[in-house]
Amino acid sequence: MLIRLSQLFFRTLREDPVDAEVASHRLLVRAGYIRRAAPGIYTWLPLGLRVLAKVEQVVREEMAAAGAQEVHFPALLPKEPYEATGRWTEYGPNIFRLKDRKGGDYLLAPTHEEMFTLLVKDLYSSYKDLPLALYQIQTKYRDEARPRAGLIRGREFIMKDAYSFDVDDAGLEASYQAQRDAYRRIFDRLGLEYVIVAATSGAMGGSRSEEFLTPTAIGEDTFVRSPGGYAANVEAVTTVVPDAVPFDDAPATHVEDTPDTPTIDTLVAVANERFARPDRAWTAADTLKNVVLALVHPSGERELLVVGLPGDREVDLKRLEAAVAPAEVEAAGDADFAPHPELVRGYLGPDVLGPNVPVADGAERTAIRYLLDPRVVPGTRWITGANEHGKHVFDLVAGRDFTADGTVEAAEVRAGDPAPDGSGPLELARGIEIGHIFALGRKYAQALGLTVLDQNGKAQVVTMGSYGIGVTRVLAALAEANNDERGLAWPAHVAPAHVHVVAAGKDPAVFEAADAIATELSSRGVEVLYDDRAGKATPGVKFADAELLGVPLVVVVGRGIAEGVVEVRPRVGGTTEQVPVAEVADRVEALVTNLLTA
Amino acid sequence: MLIRLSQLFFRTLREDPVDAEVASHRLLVRAGYIRRAAPGIYTWLPLGLRVLAKVEQVVREEMAAAGAQEVHFPALLPKEPYEATGRWTEYGPNIFRLKDRKGGDYLLAPTHEEMFTLLVKDLYSSYKDLPLALYQIQTKYRDEARPRAGLIRGREFIMKDAYSFDVDDAGLEASYQAQRDAYRRIFDRLGLEYVIVAATSGAMGGSRSEEFLTPTAIGEDTFVRSPGGYAANVEAVTTVVPDAVPFDDAPATHVEDTPDTPTIDTLVAVANERFARPDRAWTAADTLKNVVLALVHPSGERELLVVGLPGDREVDLKRLEAAVAPAEVEAAGDADFAPHPELVRGYLGPDVLGPNVPVADGAERTAIRYLLDPRVVPGTRWITGANEHGKHVFDLVAGRDFTADGTVEAAEVRAGDPAPDGSGPLELARGIEIGHIFALGRKYAQALGLTVLDQNGKAQVVTMGSYGIGVTRVLAALAEANNDERGLAWPAHVAPAHVHVVAAGKDPAVFEAADAIATELSSRGVEVLYDDRAGKATPGVKFADAELLGVPLVVVVGRGIAEGVVEVRPRVGGTTEQVPVAEVADRVEALVTNLLTA
Repeated sequence: MLIRLSQLFFRTLREDPVDAEVASHRLLVRAGYIRRAAPGIYTWLPLGLRVLAKVEQVVREEMAAAGAQEVHFPALLPKEPYEATGRWTEYGPNIFRLKDRKGGDYLLAPTHEEMFTLLVKDLYSSYKDLPLALYQIQTKYRDEARPRAGLIRGREFIMKDAYSFDVDDAGLEASYQAQRDAYRRIFDRLGLEYVIVAATSGAMGGSRSEEFLTPTAIGEDTFVRSPGGYAANVEAVTTVVPDAVPFDDAPATHVEDTPDTPTIDTLVAVANERFARPDRAWTAADTLKNVVLALVHPSGERELLVVGLPGDREVDLKRLEAAVAPAEVEAAGDADFAPHPELVRGYLGPDVLGPNVPVADGAERTAIRYLLDPRVVPGTRWITGANEHGKHVFDLVAGRDFTADGTVEAAEVRAGDPAPDGSGPLELARGIEIGHIFALGRKYAQALGLTVLDQNGKAQVVTMGSYGIGVTRVLAALAEANNDERGLAWPAHVAPAHVHVVAAGKDPAVFEAADAIATELSSRGVEVLYDDRAGKATPGVKFADAELLGVPLVVVVGRGIAEGVVEVRPRVGGTTEQVPVAEVADRVEALVTNLLTA
Repeated sequence: MLIRLSQLFFRTLREDPVDAEVASHRLLVRAGYIRRAAPGIYTWLPLGLRVLAKVEQVVREEMAAAGAQEVHFPALLPKEPYEATGRWTEYGPNIFRLKDRKGGDYLLAPTHEEMFTLLVKDLYSSYKDLPLALYQIQTKYRDEARPRAGLIRGREFIMKDAYSFDVDDAGLEASYQAQRDAYRRIFDRLGLEYVIVAATSGAMGGSRSEEFLTPTAIGEDTFVRSPGGYAANVEAVTTVVPDAVPFDDAPATHVEDTPDTPTIDTLVAVANERFARPDRAWTAADTLKNVVLALVHPSGERELLVVGLPGDREVDLKRLEAAVAPAEVEAAGDADFAPHPELVRGYLGPDVLGPNVPVADGAERTAIRYLLDPRVVPGTRWITGANEHGKHVFDLVAGRDFTADGTVEAAEVRAGDPAPDGSGPLELARGIEIGHIFALGRKYAQALGLTVLDQNGKAQVVTMGSYGIGVTRVLAALAEANNDERGLAWPAHVAPAHVHVVAAGKDPAVFEAADAIATELSSRGVEVLYDDRAGKATPGVKFADAELLGVPLVVVVGRGIAEGVVEVRPRVGGTTEQVPVAEVADRVEALVTNLLTA
């Protein structure tokens, strides 16, 4: 393969695109790999398409090795299957919906569990047909509220989605492991660092799921790790619940005037100044903060919710959303507070919430639902709002003075928090989700009637897994992990070419030699990008473009040609070699082989 | 490549799907290549996907050979570019439109002229950058009123769409020819018979277009050919206009009672019986039929139109639609006639139409627009309606007694009609449109501001071509052209495999031998489908499946194995050979090589 830059449809940009926040987005656009067509929607230029094809090829090979067969579903799908599983509603505003000319409801599919389930139901009927694994590499759609970071969070993107079908739990476990292993091989081959973390299943449902995250500071996902090997997406972390505290000897509650303490900090200061405790100073962790939030259910219904948690922690909206899925969470606004004069902002306490509000016999409870952080166990003593402006209550004891509708994992996870499995303190890091695997169980098969006859001729509901890789996102993650201030620096396996030959100079001898080298390398099976541009493209422009494009080896044919030598240098690291023209093809071929087998 | 049917995700059906009208649809579903997901929307199963990939590969190779570079655009696109060219409106109900969560208007693109134009504008600015040819193989959408015939008229389908960019007309002509030649090579390589016919450009616009049609009785397009080499889509045929006839001596018009003559046939009968002409009998060609139709403009506006044509011809709605594009044509209904009491159904004549209706000085004409078939030249004499029930007018002379708002190509084309270029009588045939190439000219570049600087630094509007191949439709056309009553019969180049090995029997020796043959062939690079199914799949079932699936060579390993021979037979034609086991790999490899190089 020999691509001449004089013919190639590309244009490099010296300026960063104004909307680009992250390196992969900035560089993929600047190097002429992709162009924005609309928010979160991108066009692939020839070089980008080459990298994409290489990533897809690795995925295909490992899917085949794992026994999965490739199929291809439409993106435009009728509503009915998604209605049968409830996802038509659950996805809320996150999917694109449309009507055809006859008024039929359609969606642009964000993922295809329903369709795969129906297809298998359509074709198969016996336990002998299973296990079965199918996959597709296909264009998906999500109407993201905030598309960002180029390919990392797009609205039209390419996914590999695989699905497994088994008769029993042991079969699902084996299928899940086979896909998990295939994912490890895929990311290993792509040279992409990854962490496998426990995750929540969200709208997908199912009993168990894990995410593959590639660690990077610009990642949207936060995950935790412990020295003992625990790893989880922050949404999936469960709080270590302390033991209940005996409260027989606890002092009685007392309400105190605490003017001008609308925040935790001011409250702690006033408490220490005016109501100092003998043993130690009050801290924020002694206060119970009650945060008013609004759940937006997929139906559009808006429900207020109060979360009570120690005052030294914030509510993590993503953790709360994972806990209340498919509802979405918003901060409560003035319009939410208006019909609730009992909610005294800044001085809100349990008395007016949930089960703490007395109800007349037979009347329906109307108080706002109240959920507590799991750390608020019976017997713990709190300073909290007295539901009156300028007043707080002290020594309010959980389980004695107040209770709640339940607990919720909504408090932020902090570095140093204990891992739930006792494996030590957690550390936090950020990453990009590049894969997500789900042991779905029977949810979809049950909803859509996928059964097979077992050995005894009895119908058994099939158990399923679903396994996704964001292919375009993986490409962005590769760009994110492989660049420097001068441009992209692709691993050889996914680079658009193996070698970038630069004809540096105006001398016809330079072009002749460069031509011969590019042609010879190409004839040996080396993929060559050949910068044969004449005219305005100076050697300086060409060098800058070579660094921006990021092909792993650069061969510069320049002044040295008079002495019969050319320069061979790796895009990153290593040193520049002066190689005699007669040896350059051998040398480069050897270097490429090394890079590809590394 | 070795695919074991015991593992393959497929299921053959003995019954035709109820909605399948044509062989390709019926057989692709029955053989387990595709499944319907929604009207006009299909899922690709593993075998179908293999054939699709092979067709795409041929297209890619020939596009590359023609110098076109591959890119990839989104399917989900914002309205604005399509509004700039007017196509957002012109497409009327034929495209899928949707809104995103912010209320922005989007479409699922039916074709990408606008986006390619903008991309080139974005990257290029000099005449030195041209000529340029780009293409993509991508999923397209059309909200067809009547999706039918499986993949032939779908709502989600795959197209190869290429676009050329040139500075001048000569450049466009060269680019057009290069694509035209590439199309010939593509269809030649695919073994698909085709005819290149002149075509109309429809909503696409542009100066010239040609269609590639593959002849078949089930085709939706009618085309014509003359002995002298004229070929055109029926919509593009122009009528040979006879010379005007002197009418100084023509008799005066006379209105006659013609009760009970609502049709042309009854009118001709009555005319011959009661108003016989001396020289010859009246025929339907002597009558002027005025047909009331409704144009539906893209804006939704409905406009009545009357077409006057010789009574021996029908209005061809597709020809009329091509003439009035982007309007669509419907038969006029009672609601259309209601406000027009002057339209006497069955007895409608020119007097009440178009310019024949007198208008007071300064008043605006309100009569219904009236267009004539080009054969109705001045001096021709007609029997036509007198706008009164039971009355017709005789000797109504065109140009003397009536006139019209213009002419229109709306009459059906018939076998024997003269070719417009004088190359002889036309014959009619039907075909499937598999390719369409357009010399677009400057329409899109003008609308979207794509200019380049010429040698003199002056901005020149770029001239473009657009070139489409319906990839999924081509696959259907191949299936349509290659089947018999027993199933599909793929050409070797696109077959899902080269050889279908059948283990026919229960004897373990049969399976052992078949296994060894399949493995050996696969190791030699032959693509093998191996029917290794045990259990319920009897030899009869396996043979029927082999014929249905349509792989070009079948190797049957059965009873003969006791004597050390297997059967090798082509799927169609040819004769069955008994081949010694030791020679079968050599023999099959040679046959496959022959088929692939044929």
